[in-house]
Amino acid sequence: MNLAHVRIVGSGLIGSSIGLALRTHGIEVTMIDSDQRSQAIAQDLMGMVPSTKEVDLVVIATPLSQYEVVIESEYQRNLNSSFIDIGSVKVKAKVEALASIGDLSTFLPSHPMAGREVGGAESARADLFEDRIWVYDSAGVNEKTTQLGLELISLCGATALEMESAAHDQAVALISHLPQAISSLLAAQLQGAPSSTMELAGAGLRDTTRIAASSPALWREILTSNSAALKPLLAQFASDLQVLIEGLDEPEVVHELMAAGNRGRAAIPGKHGGSARSYTYLPVVIEDKPGQLAALFDEAAAASVNVEDLTIEHSPEQFTGLITLALSADDAATLHQHLRDKGWRVHAPR
Amino acid sequence: MNLAHVRIVGSGLIGSSIGLALRTHGIEVTMIDSDQRSQAIAQDLMGMVPSTKEVDLVVIATPLSQYEVVIESEYQRNLNSSFIDIGSVKVKAKVEALASIGDLSTFLPSHPMAGREVGGAESARADLFEDRIWVYDSAGVNEKTTQLGLELISLCGATALEMESAAHDQAVALISHLPQAISSLLAAQLQGAPSSTMELAGAGLRDTTRIAASSPALWREILTSNSAALKPLLAQFASDLQVLIEGLDEPEVVHELMAAGNRGRAAIPGKHGGSARSYTYLPVVIEDKPGQLAALFDEAAAASVNVEDLTIEHSPEQFTGLITLALSADDAATLHQHLRDKGWRVHAPR
Repeated sequence: MNLAHVRIVGSGLIGSSIGLALRTHGIEVTMIDSDQRSQAIAQDLMGMVPSTKEVDLVVIATPLSQYEVVIESEYQRNLNSSFIDIGSVKVKAKVEALASIGDLSTFLPSHPMAGREVGGAESARADLFEDRIWVYDSAGVNEKTTQLGLELISLCGATALEMESAAHDQAVALISHLPQAISSLLAAQLQGAPSSTMELAGAGLRDTTRIAASSPALWREILTSNSAALKPLLAQFASDLQVLIEGLDEPEVVHELMAAGNRGRAAIPGKHGGSARSYTYLPVVIEDKPGQLAALFDEAAAASVNVEDLTIEHSPEQFTGLITLALSADDAATLHQHLRDKGWRVHAPR
Repeated sequence: MNLAHVRIVGSGLIGSSIGLALRTHGIEVTMIDSDQRSQAIAQDLMGMVPSTKEVDLVVIATPLSQYEVVIESEYQRNLNSSFIDIGSVKVKAKVEALASIGDLSTFLPSHPMAGREVGGAESARADLFEDRIWVYDSAGVNEKTTQLGLELISLCGATALEMESAAHDQAVALISHLPQAISSLLAAQLQGAPSSTMELAGAGLRDTTRIAASSPALWREILTSNSAALKPLLAQFASDLQVLIEGLDEPEVVHELMAAGNRGRAAIPGKHGGSARSYTYLPVVIEDKPGQLAALFDEAAAASVNVEDLTIEHSPEQFTGLITLALSADDAATLHQHLRDKGWRVHAPR
């Protein structure tokens, strides 16, 4: 354990959450933000006092557009420190660091896979990174800096994963930036639709457009900074879309697209990593009032089954809800019988 | 109440669910399917005995591709009956009915907004339509047929909504068929991605591709049958996508797309109809083991707050979970204080 004093530049969600996590381990944190109010909130959250210790590690947690100015000034101020950044695009981070510092030996590019739709110090949580993957790229980075970075990742409760920066940028372009762009484009099509149309919207539309509520200011930077990796993916999507448009009257063309979607969807790992787990789903109709969910989960506990996931589907205009519980096949059979015996409106698992 | 004997042709999810709903009201149901096994399951589910009463209403619940043959033969067999269909595309249904029957006076086109990702009689539920919107188009339909159709909708517990067929097809093209096509195209891009990439996937990718797991056979028919309404929407999406591709290095272009996505997303109504309700979100970290959710909902009940919705977010590789509860602002404040007092790992509402 070598970290004693960490300087965090940028008091947004990620920077502040790192600060909170380090504080729970008793490490001194100096929180810096160009916005005085944000800095005050973050410092208040962490109950900090000015440190007299030398800074071991500087965390660059600002928007990518500020990297050039911030890295330059932080490097001049902390010539003997190591540096780590947490930006969403790693090739760009390396380029900026190289321009400001001259070499990358004291700069560890990294990226915690733990964003949220909300931002700011007030949304920060010490446990934001718990059990999340945290990618880092130690190519050309000296041993001391790499070890300090890994210590920070470990103290945040994350799982460090070494990945080359260009490979990281390719990966997030596919699993994060492409879905964001497509979801935003899809939601944009809803603008101006009559309310009589929107009233027919169901869970499918809601799910596909959830992330379209994300911050334009944040995503503008991410998408433009990773345009080299993202553009070919958007172009391939556009090409496939053109095939669909031209073949929309041909059942075989549409079928093949849908089947390709099935295959791609099946490639997404499920809970707890590994390949997608298949659950058995148990539908239960409940009244939509306080205590009903509690009573349902009491039954699950009484039957000693583990609810792996659940969805709540509300019916329009009426206050009833359909709860679909995801369980193992055995647990679903057990709970189905248990709930039936207790008089619940439970339907057959599937 | 005039329905005494309803004949349902097609024992899939919708047809069988209608049958179950009618049976709970004591109405005689004859269930027909070209597939003998499906018909047997459906009849068994409903505990039916052969009816001697004349058929009041024939429900066409087959795939659209079978309409031509089925409507023709059902019309010849039940010359004095009324007809209703439940297909996803209404203009096509009218065209087929007109060709088979000669006029639309005894044929009510309708569409219950209650699909699921699973199909078949074994997934049928008597409450599938409870509190759902059920669109119908009575233009040119005689009074008796319209009343019988409305009675069926009412007995299924749905809310009848009159809508012109072309307007319906336009509406579902936007809120259902476009999201389905785009989600499938998005998921298709994941094919062949390395597992090291897929392991970084988060909730955003999962949500945007959930409906890409839907049945190709079912959706092939829906998309091709509504291609006239869907094609211009796909073309507009393609045009907007092209703007993004060409402007991907320009922050203003990307910002405007994201902002348009924000606006479109905000147009989706929330729970219980009406415009989208804004909830306050309360994050709680729990251990992922039986009884934890029950204990949490017990606390919500003890605090007399109404949980409007929730999401469960699992951390990879470790068995902890983040529950985000959606509540009214007042309830969120109440429950936050309550859970803190009880020692839960609850974070500030936002």
